[in-house]
Amino acid sequence: MNELPRSYVAPQRVLLGPGPSEIHPSVLRALSQPTMGHLDPELLKVQDELRSMLGAIWGTAPQNALAISATGTGAMEAALVNAIEPGDEVLVVTHGYFGDRMVEIANRCGAKTTVVQGEWGRATDPSVIAAAAKKPFKVLGLVHAETSTGVRQDLAPLAAIAQQCGALLLADCVTSLGCIPVDFDRNGIDLAYSCSQKGLSCPPGSSPLALSARAQDVVKKRTKKCSSFYFDFQLVNDYWAGARGYHHTASSNQLVAMHEACRLVLEEGLAARFERQRKMSEAFVQGIEAMGLEPVVPAAERLPQLVAVRIPAGVDDMKVRGRLLREFGIEIGGGLGAFKGKVWRVGLMGSGATPRNVTLLLGALESLLRAEGFRPKDSGIAAANLS
Amino acid sequence: MNELPRSYVAPQRVLLGPGPSEIHPSVLRALSQPTMGHLDPELLKVQDELRSMLGAIWGTAPQNALAISATGTGAMEAALVNAIEPGDEVLVVTHGYFGDRMVEIANRCGAKTTVVQGEWGRATDPSVIAAAAKKPFKVLGLVHAETSTGVRQDLAPLAAIAQQCGALLLADCVTSLGCIPVDFDRNGIDLAYSCSQKGLSCPPGSSPLALSARAQDVVKKRTKKCSSFYFDFQLVNDYWAGARGYHHTASSNQLVAMHEACRLVLEEGLAARFERQRKMSEAFVQGIEAMGLEPVVPAAERLPQLVAVRIPAGVDDMKVRGRLLREFGIEIGGGLGAFKGKVWRVGLMGSGATPRNVTLLLGALESLLRAEGFRPKDSGIAAANLS
Repeated sequence: MNELPRSYVAPQRVLLGPGPSEIHPSVLRALSQPTMGHLDPELLKVQDELRSMLGAIWGTAPQNALAISATGTGAMEAALVNAIEPGDEVLVVTHGYFGDRMVEIANRCGAKTTVVQGEWGRATDPSVIAAAAKKPFKVLGLVHAETSTGVRQDLAPLAAIAQQCGALLLADCVTSLGCIPVDFDRNGIDLAYSCSQKGLSCPPGSSPLALSARAQDVVKKRTKKCSSFYFDFQLVNDYWAGARGYHHTASSNQLVAMHEACRLVLEEGLAARFERQRKMSEAFVQGIEAMGLEPVVPAAERLPQLVAVRIPAGVDDMKVRGRLLREFGIEIGGGLGAFKGKVWRVGLMGSGATPRNVTLLLGALESLLRAEGFRPKDSGIAAANLS
Repeated sequence: MNELPRSYVAPQRVLLGPGPSEIHPSVLRALSQPTMGHLDPELLKVQDELRSMLGAIWGTAPQNALAISATGTGAMEAALVNAIEPGDEVLVVTHGYFGDRMVEIANRCGAKTTVVQGEWGRATDPSVIAAAAKKPFKVLGLVHAETSTGVRQDLAPLAAIAQQCGALLLADCVTSLGCIPVDFDRNGIDLAYSCSQKGLSCPPGSSPLALSARAQDVVKKRTKKCSSFYFDFQLVNDYWAGARGYHHTASSNQLVAMHEACRLVLEEGLAARFERQRKMSEAFVQGIEAMGLEPVVPAAERLPQLVAVRIPAGVDDMKVRGRLLREFGIEIGGGLGAFKGKVWRVGLMGSGATPRNVTLLLGALESLLRAEGFRPKDSGIAAANLS
């Protein structure tokens, strides 16, 4: 090395993109507590409590919940690679980037994948899914909250469709857990995964999963070992709750941070947390609509925690996002895949969904849009009902 | 949930097991800096600097280094799943738990695995490896520093053997990077992986890898996609250094902590760091030998950073380790696999290899061994040459 870099001093961002979301200071403090060994009996207590809290957040029993040491994409892979054996018939519904990713990973797992291709920016009609579920499938997979478009896919009618084709119901809840109700048991989900850095407002690095008794049974009765050792649920579960055998070196820092993040979620209360995010999102949408911008997704299918906003004609995506970040320290997301350059993705997730952040973002957007020559119809801030 | 847990307050451990090692306070501070997005241009700078530092620590060019968002076991899987296509002939040398794990994961990747079975607690003679390398192999894999036994396998003669059978040389450096020289380029290694929580003294959660130009070429020319999407080097590398495309949500907290940890390694200097660990290990071994305990591995093959100590007859493993942890806050490791209940594993790694820790551990061990009825021959502390 020619010259040693200096200690890095991180900027203070306002995280209003698709994740990571705003992290509560007490979660960052928890993250930096002294490190413990992965087999320390004290860490086992943390994991037990964390499991109970995750169970409560998922809406299932603690013993159905666990977490892997990877991000949300790792969790998607973990869920699929455990549920699927090569040659299995799998039905995946997609209407966005992460549905497409589910197809890609299912294929890499050796599945024979049937795809229900929906429209980007819309939910897929359950009757269309039911029509595709006319033969037996091992897994019916879809995304609850599509992070690329901000679409909510209603989970309620899906268990019946999964039952109709004998499939495990697998739900990607990366952008829903902690933001909108998942109700794992009530909705008859068999296998779900999320991440730490969106609705739970914890840094990325560990990802919660939930498995129904039926999913656990399928995993146990595999005829061929899971092709992944790192993500093998049998081994991960043995570490979390079985013989407490060594499997991998989980980060105590990350788990203690998750513990604090989940504690904050439950201290606020799930219903209150959902309502706060809904309200702040509604205020944000009121604001942008007053300015003459429009959300991509119709209100009935729109996620509160992630709003895709159409970029007005003549406005430079990169320029506005660059200035938001440089001048205001605000991160919002750009478009992915088919939506690249066409939408902004605004996350009002977890700790980030506050009157302060909505006001700041509306104000900063208005200022930058004016600089880009876009004339807001009305004041966004005046229109946003924050109370 | 019946009752919400309280905020967790972590104990202050002295981490002298097989990892995590002692974490420097400035690394914990770095970990808790404000979170940034995974695509923040500021984070890109952190990653570029980190890559340069990792290259220097590996002994290779920055563009050959990267890190994945998983622990060392994830890195082992990442290396194997990228290098191996189903049906490939793979030669694995094992003389311990992690060599065995490499066999297990290679098999899960669909390799036709040939195993050179060595003896636990000893290195494997290069001539034995050469004798097994008489037909073509895609990969020759082995563990540089076997964490289960504390054995060092000399890397110098291996490139010639790999060449003889046309194989990529794959080295598990989980317990060697930052502790003893790896010299990636000089030793002709093609693919190596490590972890953050041992020689680098950073919390677990991201794992450095290095790939030679030849290994990068093999990965690029795969006939079948890597079965793992999360660990696919092509995609991970594209995120780190290519189009900077989105692949997964890496933790800025973890990467900023790694940046600080690597900075501390290079600030001390690799040679000085290796020498400090060697000296502290020598002092520790002098101390235990004076008391009448013995290291498992002969001096010539013994790792300084991880010393397996035979548990004396009549001494209760769990009782001593339990009291060390409860009464002194000291973590050491127990035995794995064939060594379970028979050895203690003492790590003097990275920041943890200090006169203070050696003295504390020798003193606490002496005190607890006496309580167990074991009469030390001589004073361990008197025998340990700490200067």
